[in-house]
Parts: sequence; structure tokens; C-alpha cells
Amino acid sequence: MTFEKRLAERAGGIEAGLADMLAGKSQSGLVPERLAGAMRHAVMAGGKRIRPFLVIESAAVFGADADAAMPIAMALELVHCYSLVHDDLPSMDNDALRRGQPTVWKAYDEWTAILAGDALLTLAFEVLADPQNTVVSPAVKLELVGELAKASGGRGMVGGQCIDLEADKLGKPAEPSIRHIERLQALKTGALFRFACLAGARIGDATLSEQHAMTRFGEKLGAAFQLADDLLDVEGEAATVGKATGKDAAAGKATLIGLLGLEAARARLAEIEAAALAEIAGLGARADVLRETLRFAVARRR
Amino acid sequence: MTFEKRLAERAGGIEAGLADMLAGKSQSGLVPERLAGAMRHAVMAGGKRIRPFLVIESAAVFGADADAAMPIAMALELVHCYSLVHDDLPSMDNDALRRGQPTVWKAYDEWTAILAGDALLTLAFEVLADPQNTVVSPAVKLELVGELAKASGGRGMVGGQCIDLEADKLGKPAEPSIRHIERLQALKTGALFRFACLAGARIGDATLSEQHAMTRFGEKLGAAFQLADDLLDVEGEAATVGKATGKDAAAGKATLIGLLGLEAARARLAEIEAAALAEIAGLGARADVLRETLRFAVARRR
Repeated sequence: MTFEKRLAERAGGIEAGLADMLAGKSQSGLVPERLAGAMRHAVMAGGKRIRPFLVIESAAVFGADADAAMPIAMALELVHCYSLVHDDLPSMDNDALRRGQPTVWKAYDEWTAILAGDALLTLAFEVLADPQNTVVSPAVKLELVGELAKASGGRGMVGGQCIDLEADKLGKPAEPSIRHIERLQALKTGALFRFACLAGARIGDATLSEQHAMTRFGEKLGAAFQLADDLLDVEGEAATVGKATGKDAAAGKATLIGLLGLEAARARLAEIEAAALAEIAGLGARADVLRETLRFAVARRR
Repeated sequence: MTFEKRLAERAGGIEAGLADMLAGKSQSGLVPERLAGAMRHAVMAGGKRIRPFLVIESAAVFGADADAAMPIAMALELVHCYSLVHDDLPSMDNDALRRGQPTVWKAYDEWTAILAGDALLTLAFEVLADPQNTVVSPAVKLELVGELAKASGGRGMVGGQCIDLEADKLGKPAEPSIRHIERLQALKTGALFRFACLAGARIGDATLSEQHAMTRFGEKLGAAFQLADDLLDVEGEAATVGKATGKDAAAGKATLIGLLGLEAARARLAEIEAAALAEIAGLGARADVLRETLRFAVARRR
């Protein structure tokens, strides 16, 4: 099976799980219909589902099956989806379209979008704590609640979004350094990739040193994914990428490419890729899917 | 010790715990300063701290000490504080002042307030899952993660806020019934009171039937608290209440008082109080603080 086919198949399974959950007995009738509709709009809008894919594939490397990984994968995707709903708001990135569809605030309104994001974030922790998932022990699930909270909150993704908006809205710092942008991206994008790889290893039979290696692999994969995204914005053609390109430059946004130049940025991406590969060199052939995921993140054209 | 003194002393302990946590090693330097400042502004703005008080006192009824209850109490207060930050936003209640101070969006801006709320909600689950809290077992902590998520999310507090805003912004339903308003209040206010009483019982030695009784007591206490609040809005004098009164009527907001009339609403409050007392009749003198809390909620003048 090609990597793209595998990714698409997993995405299908994850979407089926998310759709079931949002339509399920525990939600329907109990969540006000307007809110439930906005939550579905946010979650069922497509996407590569690469974060939950990583949870499931990382777990598989360490012998845990997809059923055990699925609730964790879904929880992570819910956090990612909530973050997009809030990021798109008029007071943040003010985006009216995402993947060709109206964003939640555009399809509904601002207050509904804020509440839908809040409800999705909260639901992520409910899913993670689900007592019906008996494959993972309560102690490990509780650890993952703590890890997901750290990855998503003020020291993680939300902190990264704050630093990003301070630059956009307040012009702070006046001249962002490479270090500043790398910290921002490590928080905003890296923290969830890191969690995905750590969580997969944690529910499998990974040793402590393997868990650490997977954590560092996840961080580097996140950095590669983000830098490739920035390169796409500069190099891609809008038709292939499926969204407006050249957006960062037009917005005067500081990126690594702006600071390093295109050639050096490409070289930096190759360095990050090599460093990520080195982290999981000890895992042998069973980690090949993770290597293909890295390759996909680096080489993708959309 | 009078009840008011006990409430104030507990509030002091809870605020010290929250201040320590927000200033602590795990947060400082790692959370961007703007975000950390907005989070402190939201949490350290005073208030009766009645929800965390209820967690601690419910735990005490069943023999669990304040140290065991404190992380759960703090997590619940973080959820309450985040909900106020988001409720105050221009696209929701558009409130510029809370307890005489600028609301978070007014002191900072909208995007900072949205992110601060997101970070506080996320932090609540991190605090609840804290591995350093070894008094409560991982299995019980995990249960409480699930219960707090249910109480706070689309089937709980956020769902209630959605129903409330549908009435305010969209005029739906055109003629709210008593049943509609009671459902709204059970979700928006009742769910967190319910969680407070259940969580306290759960970490103590409460039997299953005592846990159920405490859950129902919490629901009724929440309903009494909300109805007393509505009565204060109609009957209170602004100087005593410390905020504008008559606000609901001026906003054309449907309340139980509007539907029932003042006399019948007072009688309804007395009924709820009696029903709440009946739920914990079997707990004897050790539950006297809970009875005083109910009396305080019903009789308060601000």
C-alpha cells in the first residue's frame, strides 16, 4: 500500500469515529442543536488528519493496536479542530474560508464559534477519560490527560498562538529572531505533533528511552511540517496548494524563509529531516511508516 | 465560626493556591507573559469562590481533607473563571466591567481574552490530572476528568450558555417556557454545582447512594443559587448587590420571575430549598455546613 493510500484509509477510519461520536447517543439531544451543528461543521470539514494518524502509527510501532489508540487519536484531532475554529475568528486571523468552506463563525456567528471551540476542547478530555476504553489503564490515560493539557495550553499550542498574534497585531517583537520564530512554531505546531508520537509510544510497549526518542522525533517532525508549509506558501502554486499562496509575505509576516532566504530555508528543512530520522534510527524497520510520514511532511506539494 | 467567616477563610486558601499555581515554576517563563497576565487577571478578580468551597466542604462531610480536595476545587474554579472571560466577550454578553474591574477583553483585547479562556480551561484538566496529587487514586482522578468535562461542555455549562444566547441574540424560542428556562439554568449554573458536590463525595468515603444524593443536592443548590440571583436582580438595591440591578428586565430577558411573578418565584425558591434539604437529610449533623451553604445561597443579599 502506498503511503498516501494508508494515510487516506486511516483518515477515513478517524472520520467515521469522529462522526459516530458527534452523532452518538451521548451527544444527540443533550447538546443544543445549534452547538452540535457548529461542532460537526468544525470537525467534519476534511483535512489530512495527520495528527491522529501519527498517534495510531506510533502506537503500532510499539505493538498497540488501532482500537487502543483511537480514542487518543480522536481527542487530539478535536483539540486541533477547536484551535482552527478559534484561530479563524475575526479578532484573530479573520479567515472566512477554510478548505473552500465557510469557517464556523462565518457559517454561524462569532459567539457560536467560540462556544463550539470551547465544547470541542472540553470533549477532547471527556473522550480521553472515557471509561469504556479499557485497553489503556486509568493511570496511563490520566498521564495522557496531563500531557495533552500541557501540549495544548498556555505552555503549548495556545501559548504559540499568543506569540504569533502578538507579532501580527502588536508588532512585537519589532524584529523577530530565528530563535523567536522557532519557539513560536515549536509551541503552536510542534507541541501537538510531539504529543501524538509520545502518546502512541506510551500506550505501546516502548521503553522510557524509546518514549524520549519518539518525543524528540515528534518535535522535529512538527518543525519540518511547519517549515514545509512556509515553503509551500512561497513556492507553491495556488491551484496545487488549494489555498491562497504568498499570504505570509503579503501579510508582512516574519517567517524562517524571510529571515534565512529560500536556499538556506530549504537546507534547514533537510537538516531537520536528517535529525528527525536520527532520533528513530534505533527502531529499525518497524518505524518505516514514521519515516514515510516525515518524508511526506517534507516533500508534500499541498 | 460563622458561615460567612468560614466561606471567607476557605476563599483565602483557594486564592492562595490559585495564585501559587499561576505564578509557579511550571507556568512562569513558559507561558507568554501577555497570556499569563490575562490568566491572572481573570482568576484573581475576587468572588465568593463558592464552587471550590463546595468541593472542599462536600469532601469534608465524607472524611476527605482539604489537601485532597484542593486540586479538584482549583480545577473547578478555573473552569468557572474561563467561562466568565468568554461570557463577557463583545460577541456574547459584551460586558466591560466585572466586580468593578475591567473584564479581560477590555483590559487586554478580544483575542487575548479568548486565548486566556482557552488556556484556563486547558489548565483545569492539567491540575486535575496532576501526578503530584497522590491522595486521590488515578482511577478516581480520571473519573473526575470525565465528570468535569461533561459538566463543562456541550451537554453542560457551554450548552447552557448556547441556549441562553440563542434567546438573547436570535429570540429563540419566541416564548420560553418555565421548563425551557429551568433546563438552561440546570446546564449553565447547575452542572458545575452538581460536579462540586459529587466530586467531594467521590474522593471521600461516600457510598454510591450518598454520591447520588449529593449529586441531586448539588443540582438543587445550583437551581436555588440561580433563582436567588434572579430575585436579587429584581429586588436588590444596586448599592448592596454591587452591580446594576434590573438588568434582566431592561434586557427583556425571560426569567422564572417574569413567567411566574414575584410571589410565586419566592415560593418556588422555598420549594427548591426544602427539596435540597431532603436530599441530604440522611447525612445528619456532619452535613450542617452544606445546609448553611444552601441557606446562604437562598438568603443572600448580594
